[in-house]
Amino acid sequence: MKGGWLTETRERRSPIGTQTDGGPGPLDGHEAATILERSRAVVDPELRAAIDSLPGSMRRVALYHFGWEHPDGTPAAGHAGKAIRPALVLTAAAALGGPGARTAAVRAAAAVELVHNFTLLHDDVMDRDTTRRHRPTAWTVFGDPDAILAGDALQALALRLLAEDPHPAAAAAGVRLANCVIELCAGQHADTAMEQRAPAEVTLDETLAMAEAKTGALLGCACALGGLYAGAAAEDVAALDAFGREAGLAFQLIDDVIGIWGDPSRTGKPAGADLAARKKSLPVVAALASGTPAAAELAELYRAPYEKEDLERTVLAVERAGGRDWAQVQAADRMARAMQELARAVPEPEAAGGLLALAEFVTRRSS
Amino acid sequence: MKGGWLTETRERRSPIGTQTDGGPGPLDGHEAATILERSRAVVDPELRAAIDSLPGSMRRVALYHFGWEHPDGTPAAGHAGKAIRPALVLTAAAALGGPGARTAAVRAAAAVELVHNFTLLHDDVMDRDTTRRHRPTAWTVFGDPDAILAGDALQALALRLLAEDPHPAAAAAGVRLANCVIELCAGQHADTAMEQRAPAEVTLDETLAMAEAKTGALLGCACALGGLYAGAAAEDVAALDAFGREAGLAFQLIDDVIGIWGDPSRTGKPAGADLAARKKSLPVVAALASGTPAAAELAELYRAPYEKEDLERTVLAVERAGGRDWAQVQAADRMARAMQELARAVPEPEAAGGLLALAEFVTRRSS
Repeated sequence: MKGGWLTETRERRSPIGTQTDGGPGPLDGHEAATILERSRAVVDPELRAAIDSLPGSMRRVALYHFGWEHPDGTPAAGHAGKAIRPALVLTAAAALGGPGARTAAVRAAAAVELVHNFTLLHDDVMDRDTTRRHRPTAWTVFGDPDAILAGDALQALALRLLAEDPHPAAAAAGVRLANCVIELCAGQHADTAMEQRAPAEVTLDETLAMAEAKTGALLGCACALGGLYAGAAAEDVAALDAFGREAGLAFQLIDDVIGIWGDPSRTGKPAGADLAARKKSLPVVAALASGTPAAAELAELYRAPYEKEDLERTVLAVERAGGRDWAQVQAADRMARAMQELARAVPEPEAAGGLLALAEFVTRRSS
Repeated sequence: MKGGWLTETRERRSPIGTQTDGGPGPLDGHEAATILERSRAVVDPELRAAIDSLPGSMRRVALYHFGWEHPDGTPAAGHAGKAIRPALVLTAAAALGGPGARTAAVRAAAAVELVHNFTLLHDDVMDRDTTRRHRPTAWTVFGDPDAILAGDALQALALRLLAEDPHPAAAAAGVRLANCVIELCAGQHADTAMEQRAPAEVTLDETLAMAEAKTGALLGCACALGGLYAGAAAEDVAALDAFGREAGLAFQLIDDVIGIWGDPSRTGKPAGADLAARKKSLPVVAALASGTPAAAELAELYRAPYEKEDLERTVLAVERAGGRDWAQVQAADRMARAMQELARAVPEPEAAGGLLALAEFVTRRSS
């Protein structure tokens, strides 16, 4: 019964961006946490072995960036993010191919996480971001050249893992991951280029396209790789890709909402950091495009250099111009589309449960 | 008769770094020029198609970097270097597998050239070099982020070309090329790290190791890939790799000699640019390590900031400390080793002729 679980699920879910009752069930955050933990348990050793194979200089930067070492090379127990992408690879593989496919896809899962971290290393250099996962970014510790080189090496490592994988899906996975890297680069280019333009010149469509390339592409690729390793049909692989992309956009929308209205003690960033940096995030661009008096006020505020006493007014302007509501409705809409795609690729509810839990987990965070 | 052509060739060759009589024959510069031209004729379309598949922003930077476009996007006829690496792939493939292997290896040849250019884009950002192939470097035209992203995309493109190649050697070639990227990164790291250390702290061995990683690795990889596409035995692939590495080191030694004693009107760089930049090139490090009075003088000169009136004295100090002679003897020695490796992999003189011509071509240049 294709898509049979979709209607039922929709009815018992609460709106995106708000907490559910938290009771036990296949879709609560607890299941996602378990999936993430189980994924790390098999992917981390593969990841660690790959990084340990690097020459000293790049290994050092990578181990620091992943939170496994302090800058001086002593071991650290730091957590390297949620590692949602490798979990998506394994969970998609299991959904369409069972435990055997999940085991076969571990190398591909590590490759996706390596690509993600290569882009973080380079993006931080380009954006001059100084904090990542509550620690100083690699370039602030090791300098630009070493951070760039470590990123280059992680990309090579990722594509090497697939090239040396004898699995029949490995070559197709390699092509897909390489194309995803190119899309990620295009997204980062669009992001940096848009930040240099006047807010009025930036359209909502191009901001959404940028977010899809920068965030959606790799989440989609992760799911698609899982499908490839499960031997799924091309249309199911495409549906998995679309599922990941839509969920990724939903995530980005929520993330942008949090970037404005999130609790600094939970986000680790100062309140209104995105507004202070005059970021053209999705709620801001939507607000500016609303044609409301609040949009005009926001545009004027964004033209002037940031001053702390204007922060509250800026937050309110985005809100009154409808930026927050738009983002939340969009996020819910994207999640609905994600679920449709998922129902297409994985009609059996038990099999789809894990991917659904992960998608809800990333979009349901409140910090 | 394994290695039969080696003795004969040695006897009629003049020393490395000097011009030969230039008479017609299988080893003169004319044959190399023909090989390079024939290689470009088949590799350029593959390369161009790959770059044309990139999203606009990265395509623009890549087309500029390759000399096919001006900064404003209008077509340019510029030559993008000698493209020696793809020629090595094709010539090695032909040497061990005939014309069929040469044709099969075109994609791999383009991949190697893409990797080479990805490293040039990134190295120029890191080294803040402003001129490449007589034109402003990409980062000076498009900014650091776009140059970094274009480099990232070229690496992905290179490894994608191999991942989508159905040839049975493609996966092994992908692994080899990815490992080569990692070695190139290690070489670039060693280079930037060494430039920040005091000259007295830098040993000749580590300078040679750096040069092998930075220059030898990709020339070796190019030859090895040709061998893989010819279906060569593992030991022959290894010998081809060693041939390329040794020839690469010979090239680097000659290049460093030219960086000090070359004719500015032919090198396109101001006289003594490497000395002015206090580069720890191979002849300089060898001179510093010589224990001669000239070494002490050179060390003192290198401790002080560069002044134009000291250039001649610095050049003479390197020369009197034996830096030039050492580099030329080393280059000849490396070429001899390269030829031994080549004789091992390709015992038939007619088959080895093309690779020998290319190796001689890159090391025999006088500008």
